[in-house]
Amino acid sequence: MADLAAYMASHCELIEKQLDQLMPEKDVPYRTLFHAARYSLLGGGKRLRPILTLATTETLGGNVKKALIPACAVEMIHTYSLIHDDLPCMDNDDFRRGKPSLHKAFLEGHAVLTGDFLLTNAFDVLAHDAQLTAEQKITLISILSRKSGGEGMIGGQVMDLEAEGKQIDLAALRCIHRNKTGALLTASIEFGAVVAGASDAHMDVLRQFGEEIGLAFQIIDDVLDVTASGQKHGKATASDITNQKTTYVSLLGLEQAQALAHQLFQSAVSQLKQLPYDITLLTRLAELVVCRKG
Amino acid sequence: MADLAAYMASHCELIEKQLDQLMPEKDVPYRTLFHAARYSLLGGGKRLRPILTLATTETLGGNVKKALIPACAVEMIHTYSLIHDDLPCMDNDDFRRGKPSLHKAFLEGHAVLTGDFLLTNAFDVLAHDAQLTAEQKITLISILSRKSGGEGMIGGQVMDLEAEGKQIDLAALRCIHRNKTGALLTASIEFGAVVAGASDAHMDVLRQFGEEIGLAFQIIDDVLDVTASGQKHGKATASDITNQKTTYVSLLGLEQAQALAHQLFQSAVSQLKQLPYDITLLTRLAELVVCRKG
Repeated sequence: MADLAAYMASHCELIEKQLDQLMPEKDVPYRTLFHAARYSLLGGGKRLRPILTLATTETLGGNVKKALIPACAVEMIHTYSLIHDDLPCMDNDDFRRGKPSLHKAFLEGHAVLTGDFLLTNAFDVLAHDAQLTAEQKITLISILSRKSGGEGMIGGQVMDLEAEGKQIDLAALRCIHRNKTGALLTASIEFGAVVAGASDAHMDVLRQFGEEIGLAFQIIDDVLDVTASGQKHGKATASDITNQKTTYVSLLGLEQAQALAHQLFQSAVSQLKQLPYDITLLTRLAELVVCRKG
Repeated sequence: MADLAAYMASHCELIEKQLDQLMPEKDVPYRTLFHAARYSLLGGGKRLRPILTLATTETLGGNVKKALIPACAVEMIHTYSLIHDDLPCMDNDDFRRGKPSLHKAFLEGHAVLTGDFLLTNAFDVLAHDAQLTAEQKITLISILSRKSGGEGMIGGQVMDLEAEGKQIDLAALRCIHRNKTGALLTASIEFGAVVAGASDAHMDVLRQFGEEIGLAFQIIDDVLDVTASGQKHGKATASDITNQKTTYVSLLGLEQAQALAHQLFQSAVSQLKQLPYDITLLTRLAELVVCRKG
């Protein structure tokens, strides 16, 4: 683990090759759907969630190749959530990852349907993954549907939608982000653990780790919304201010928000120390989350 | 099977009780999501798809109780598709089943997220159904993700979206509806067959039956769009004309469209005669599809 950048690059490539295979162009009358899905799915991004899946499997001594399709399923859910989040009736973001959002590059109806397609397809690729047993598939589908569902990501998005233009407190903000961002990030780590056949005790440790870095990730997202340049972050900066959103920065100020993210990082890493495995890789990835610049 | 109306009413009640249990109100900060989901899911409707699931299981001598949650999963997918279809960027329908569409009764963002939630939840309830084996769950999830996905329902919706304002031919229209309406209707019948443990040969027969009545259903939908009164059909009539949509009626005229639906009904029923079971119930339900008034 000398070179995290090389690890990220090589695993990013593995994931993108797999996504490319799972979502080919199709010569059908509804080809735009596949074209649009590829526009969003293969349009860049840090691939943090699927890399966390692979890294967790690797840390626990599992077979990384077996974790590839599950990792891509998580990325499909993440991508659909961004597409729907960018819609005019949601965050109304015209740019994503430095290029026009899906509803600007295609029709708005395409964006709704492409999101639905990626969501559906995440479950489809899990159900058809020949490397997993039926029990493993059901465990993964169950984790994904809960963590990305009404009491996970979507619940968080509803709270976020309703909080717009309102002043909310730190507890409410934490609840939004635990659901909106934290739940799927945690699922990506649980996915890696399921593939590696982790014990319940180790699963609990990893879930706790996931929840803490998930929250740190969101705090840094709020920080970057204020500090990063438009180009580097890939979308217009300070969109939270434009959208009148309460953020960790608006509640705590920049310095305290950064300090909180670092505290969460320390706590997350101390969790990992309970595991009888080499935790260097997961620690370095957690560090990346709190030190990232975009 | 003397009284189809009584059968429909009693099975509708079974389904609605199960849906009510599967989607309770929740006292959480994102309670609006569950409230909105219940508004659409428990807001009436013919329950044709879940009744077809139950009736197929019953016809094949399976346990109807075991088919209830799978039937509700199909209804969740159907309901989400209506919510997203009604959005301003899609069909822009302000009414559904005689009351305001979800995006009129709630925020438009709520409609996007509630649709996503119901979609996700369909897979969730299948993954957690204690009455099914892991293999049965995977078979059902696989059928549902294919039939409601990019090469099924969503593919059909994309073609439908792109056909708006254009003149298309009968082959293209058939392709739209085979995907948009037929695929999920067929899935509802396959679901019943899986729960009853049908052989591959019987599954093929039932799939064919489903495809034909699915098409008949859509043709009658087009007919009713022109002929039914606004109140009876539960939404503004002739919306297809307003939306400049090509329909079976605009291509074939009213009488020929009705005749085609009846032909499909006859063909569907003749399929069923290959089965070594009493086909009265499924025949009567198919008849209902082509003779319905709303």
